[in-house]
This record gives sequence, C-alpha cells and structure tokens, in this order.
Amino acid sequence: MAGQEEYDYREMWGSLGMDVEAHDGLLAAVGQMYGDMFLTQGNRPKSTSYLDFVASNIHSGRIRELVEGREAGDPKKVVGSFCLYVPEEIISAAGAVEVGLCAGAEWAPEEAEKLVPRNTCPLIKGFMGFKLASVCPYIETADLVVGENTCDGKKKAYEEFGKLKDTFVMDVPHVRNEDTRQQWRNEVKRLAGRIEELTGQKITEESLRAAIKLANQKRLALKRLDQTRAADPVPISGLDCLLTIQAAFMDDSVRLTGAINDMAQECEARVEAGEGVAPKGAKRILYTGTPMAVPNWKLFNIIEKSGAVVVGEECCTGSRYYKDLVPEDGATIDDMLNDIADRYLNIQCAIFTPNDGRKEDVLRMARELNADGIIDCSLQFCTLYDMEATGMELAARDAGIPYMHISTGYSADDEGQLKTRIEAFLEML
Amino acid sequence: MAGQEEYDYREMWGSLGMDVEAHDGLLAAVGQMYGDMFLTQGNRPKSTSYLDFVASNIHSGRIRELVEGREAGDPKKVVGSFCLYVPEEIISAAGAVEVGLCAGAEWAPEEAEKLVPRNTCPLIKGFMGFKLASVCPYIETADLVVGENTCDGKKKAYEEFGKLKDTFVMDVPHVRNEDTRQQWRNEVKRLAGRIEELTGQKITEESLRAAIKLANQKRLALKRLDQTRAADPVPISGLDCLLTIQAAFMDDSVRLTGAINDMAQECEARVEAGEGVAPKGAKRILYTGTPMAVPNWKLFNIIEKSGAVVVGEECCTGSRYYKDLVPEDGATIDDMLNDIADRYLNIQCAIFTPNDGRKEDVLRMARELNADGIIDCSLQFCTLYDMEATGMELAARDAGIPYMHISTGYSADDEGQLKTRIEAFLEML
Repeated sequence: MAGQEEYDYREMWGSLGMDVEAHDGLLAAVGQMYGDMFLTQGNRPKSTSYLDFVASNIHSGRIRELVEGREAGDPKKVVGSFCLYVPEEIISAAGAVEVGLCAGAEWAPEEAEKLVPRNTCPLIKGFMGFKLASVCPYIETADLVVGENTCDGKKKAYEEFGKLKDTFVMDVPHVRNEDTRQQWRNEVKRLAGRIEELTGQKITEESLRAAIKLANQKRLALKRLDQTRAADPVPISGLDCLLTIQAAFMDDSVRLTGAINDMAQECEARVEAGEGVAPKGAKRILYTGTPMAVPNWKLFNIIEKSGAVVVGEECCTGSRYYKDLVPEDGATIDDMLNDIADRYLNIQCAIFTPNDGRKEDVLRMARELNADGIIDCSLQFCTLYDMEATGMELAARDAGIPYMHISTGYSADDEGQLKTRIEAFLEML
Repeated sequence: MAGQEEYDYREMWGSLGMDVEAHDGLLAAVGQMYGDMFLTQGNRPKSTSYLDFVASNIHSGRIRELVEGREAGDPKKVVGSFCLYVPEEIISAAGAVEVGLCAGAEWAPEEAEKLVPRNTCPLIKGFMGFKLASVCPYIETADLVVGENTCDGKKKAYEEFGKLKDTFVMDVPHVRNEDTRQQWRNEVKRLAGRIEELTGQKITEESLRAAIKLANQKRLALKRLDQTRAADPVPISGLDCLLTIQAAFMDDSVRLTGAINDMAQECEARVEAGEGVAPKGAKRILYTGTPMAVPNWKLFNIIEKSGAVVVGEECCTGSRYYKDLVPEDGATIDDMLNDIADRYLNIQCAIFTPNDGRKEDVLRMARELNADGIIDCSLQFCTLYDMEATGMELAARDAGIPYMHISTGYSADDEGQLKTRIEAFLEML
C-alpha cells in the first residue's frame, strides 16, 4: 500500500487535471458523511477496519497505485465503467484494470444540465457533473471509459459524455434469445479487441483463465459474507456490506478478496457466538432497486438508524455482482469469452423484458435471508425501475411479504420524509 | 363507405365491450377540438374535405368496415400498433390490417397510474388509460396488439398491457450493425409467422409484393403532398398535413392514398397559382420531435394560430412514415422480408445510438422546405427525445437555424405559456 503520509496527493490530483480545491470540498463532505453514518455504528466486526481504510484511501493511495502501476506497466491501462455489464475478466486479461467511476453524488448539476435534461436520473447527472467539474480521480485516470446501452438515459448521455472522454459503448440487448445471445457474444469480443488495442497486449488462454479465477474468487468471498447475513442477530450491517461492494468497483481485487474473506470469517464466528451488529429480532429488510454508488448511503443509513437492518441487496451494487460465476474450464479463448458473455447476459438488469428473474431473485433472497420486508428504491426519473415497481409490488403481495417503494435522489432534502415513511413501514412489520 | 345515418354505432361500440357513455364524452370533446382547430382555418384546399370525413368517420364508419370486413373474412384480422417499426406490409400480406391505437389524449389517468408511474410519458399513460377505460374502438377491435421495444417506458408498459390484451412485442435494436441487422431481420420474420398464425393465411410472394406496392403508393402520395409545402405561400397547413398522416394509421389504405393524391394535385395547382393557406412570407416552422397521435393537435394549432405555418414534420407522424420505400423487385419472400426489415431499420428512431441521421434529416428538411426555424418538442418524461434535444440544438446552431425546444403533455394547462414562448420565438425569426 502506498504510504499516505509522505506523498503529495494534491499534486497528483493536479497532475491528473483535476480541480484540486473543489475535490478538497468533496473529500471533506464525504469524510463527514462517513463519520456520521459508518463510525457511529455500534458493535461492527473488527475486520471492517478494511472499510475505514478504503474510505480514507480510495481517492488517494488507490489512485497512486493506479498511476504508478501504469507507469510501471502493470496494469498497463485503466478502464472506467458505470455498469456490471462490462466484463472485468476481459479487461484484466488484456493487462488493464477496470474501475468504477464516480456517479453517487450530485456534483456541478448546473454544468451537467447544460448537456442532459434537468429531469435526468441523479446517477447520470452525477457522472456528467463529476466529469465536467474534474473532481473524480477515477474518470481522470481512466484511459478509456466503457459505457453500455442499459437504459435510454445512459445510452443518450454517452453521446455527449463521449465528446468529453474516449468512450466505447457496449450494446446490451433488451431480450434474451439465441439471436441476442450471439449478438452479445460478438459485442463482448468486440470489447476484447478494443482493450487489446488499448493495452497493446493480447489476451491469452492463460491470462483469461487467471482473470476468470480472480473474479470468481472475489465473488465467492462476497457470497460467503452474504450467507452469514441469514443469521439472527445479523453479524454485519447493510451499510458495511454496501460499502464492501462499492469498494469492489475500486480497490485492488486481491487485497479486496482477502479483506472480504477476513470479514466473512469474523462474521461466521459471530454467528456461531450469537453476536450481532443489531439486536436479535431487529426488523430485517431486503433492498432491491437501482444501484448505489459511493457515497449514496442515505437510504441504508436511514433504515439502520431506525433500528432495522438491511440483510441483502438485490441490485447491481449487491447480489447481481457476485451471484453467478464464470465457468473456469473453458477449453479455448473463444469458449471462455462465450462463457463470460453468457454469465453477464444472465444479470437481471431492468433493461430486459420480460425480467421475471429479478422478481424471482428478490423473493428467493427474502426467503433465504429471512427478510421481514422489501424496500424497492428507484433513483428519481429512472423509468425502468419505476416501471418495474408495479410488477415487483404485485409479486411481493402474492408472496405475502410487506413491500414499500421509494423514489429518491442524492439530495438530503427528503431525509425527513423518508425517515417518517420508513419508520411507519418498520412498525407495520 | 358505411352510411352513418342508418347504423346504430352505439350498439356496435357496446358489442365491442366499450364504455359507450364515456366514449360519447370522448367523441364530443374531440369533435369540439376539431371544430375549434381545423374548421376555423381559412382558405383550406377543398380536398381537405376528406379530413373532415375522416374526423367524423374514424370511430364509427371505419370501425364498422373493420368489424364487417372481419366477418366477411377480408381483412381476416385487425392488428393494432403504436409505432412505425411494425411493418404494415407483413400484416396486410397475411390477410390482416394494421391500425394505430388510441394514445393521443389523457384518459382515465387515475386508472393508468395504478399500473405505470405518474411521471410516465402521456402517450404511454394514454394508451394504458384508453384500454383500462374501454374507450378506444381500435384497441377493442384489435385481435392482436404488436408492441415494440423502442423506449424504456413502452418496453416495460407492455409487460402490464400484455396482461390486458394479447400483445406481441418486437425487439428493436439500439444500434445498427451487421449483428443487429440480422437479429432485426429474424424479428421481422418472427412477426410474419405470428401474423400467419393469427389469420391462418400464409404470406405468398404475390401477396407480399402487392402489400409492398400498396404501402409504397401511400408513401409516394405523401411525398408528393410534402413537396408542395416547399412553396411560399404554402398551399396547405401543418395541421391538415398532420391529420393526413394520423389518418394513414387508421383509414383504409386505398381510399386514403386516393384522397392524398387529390390533395397533392390541388396543392400543386395552388402552388402554380400562388395560392396559399397562409400569406406569402408567413414564418415557416419545421417540426421535429415525439409523434403526435390523434387528437394531439395542440402545438400545431398554437403555432399556426400565431400566424406561422408548419411546413414539415421530422417525426414518426411525419416524414419518417413515408420517406423511404421498400424495393418492389425482391425475387423471393425471404428477399422481400429482408428488404422490409432493412427499410424499417433505417427509420431514425431515437432508440438508436448514435442517431445522427435524425439531425441530418432535420437540417436537410429545413433547407428543402425553406424553414425559418425548428421547433423540437418532447412529450414530457420522454427521456430519449429530451436527451436528443441537446445534440439537435447544437446541430441547428451550427447550421445557423433558429431552434426552440418544448416539453409538453396532452393537457391544455400550459397553452398560455406555450403561446407566449412560441410568439416570442416567431418574432425573433
């Protein structure tokens, strides 16, 4: 790990072309939120100290690693993305590293609204604002951004974003059938070609197999941690688990996987000892809905500060990230690329119609994790998740599980109202 | 034409399962709008009497034709759609007829909002409301609805609409490349199979060729009418041209094509004689944006009542409908189906990324039709058109053509504001 003391990070940010003063303001605000939301939690597993490290390191030491790594040629390039549909195995097999880009806060909305409409979802407006204001070290470090057609808003926003930053857009289908599977497999191979071109390094059978194993190990660690959350009392908070997944989009895979296994091990011991982060009998919530990028911790914080605990996340910053593995026994590069494409095509993204798999996953997780209720949240102006809420509510009702839909943005303005609504929902459970 | 006097249309509507009293209210409101907006126009071409006939006949005599035609087996079935992407040639070649479904007014929003979110575009909320309140004779007459994945909202709305009505959804790609062309060609063939199944009638080389010619003749008539609008004074209003296209989605193709050719002929003579529907020198507007279904005449009425004239429509209820023909020389059924698929894939729908062809079409039409300004309108909550407005505005600015973006719904509430904004825009031209 890069030592934070001796190194001049402000100089590094400046050399990346960032607005260092504005970024100071961002770091201070996020640091304050982290203190208020995470450090006030009682009885956290000790191994969550990793998360405190991530919170302090993610815009500094981690960026230094990426910058210095690139200078040393390992990884050769940094590839940014906003979506689970961009296969990390391909990027790392070609000698680059995939990182998630900033999109979890409102930043420079007046700048973003010059390019996207005011009633654009906060995630899209967020990444446009972060880029336009030069405050995201990941966007500025990335040699290439890989976008994806997963909703109307992102699809069109990339047309403008692509003028600000070199962007390769992957075309994700709307339906699953043999034609679209073939098209998606070709799209994945098109990405492989583009990344090889970027790094000047060919994907080999060996590098691809290693990349598949590396990603699977991370997923297995996350699944292991996930399983401990079925216990009552639950050993770890939803906030800490959410940040663990968020960290997975930014931190080094090997370090991260080790840390998650440490957390899982501690949580297993806690379950054995009947030790929890919340009292036994605390109301248990399954979250489903739009992804939550750092520092969008608002909803989880309100739920858990109200005395309940989030026991699972059916979303892109949750189970969809780690649920399915890629087979490790593909015989050739082509087989492995097809296996990767097929694994990603199975993510229950709301772009697909029908998307009944999402409903099935939510009900299965609610059962397995002993959830008392489901909270389904759409980022405001997110057509896909707003529309899916109808079917989700009916599915929950049919299964006899209390359900609540929330539409919210990144602003703190509605925290009071959300708190009132969530407390009322929890009382009803 | 069915005689309107002797026939009991209210009984017919009742037998279709419609809410006859609510429908009476709808007809009265639309009739009033037609009188206020269309019949107050001065110096219309005489041949627009066809449009007055359409306005009075479209929910009565035309539906009777469809119902009686179906009883007599010609056409065997009625297929409803909401989108240009559903190829009419295939439907008519298999012995059915394609009709546009009601989506141009707010109806029973409180019912629609049980299934779709409040901030859904009015077109989607409209068709859900029309179905839920049983006031659209086209929806109730249709044996099958063919939907299409052309935006996130429609895609998800069909999941609910499909529970109310037999619906077949076509998967439209987001990008144009060889993979998606192949996928779309297969999708078009899948539709052909579904319609053959519905009618019990096979598409033959002869029936498909005839259907292609019939559709092309309609398109050629519309192009011919369109060309007369380059003249100053312009021989026909934008309102009448908009209704002509709207009629094309509902009226009999042969009758309609004859009537359009009559209008075109009269307009050609008017151009020759220097006769116009608006004075020479009236400000000329090119419309671009979301489609306008009957009776969404609000914007065109405001523009033209303000003394300007709409000289062209780059939209789905405009040039996209008739601009491109299907080749008539395909040797086999398969060739013809591919030609049809390719023609439709070329429609400049905002679902595609990039969609520069739309911008090129707008600038070309503005030039050819001598437009003084462009008005780009999105139905409210339409992400795709709202997002494309940024690029459209930049393209218009680069071409030196004044541009204005409007976002509006079906309600009359904002008419005052729109009038003020449009008058200010016209003064600037």
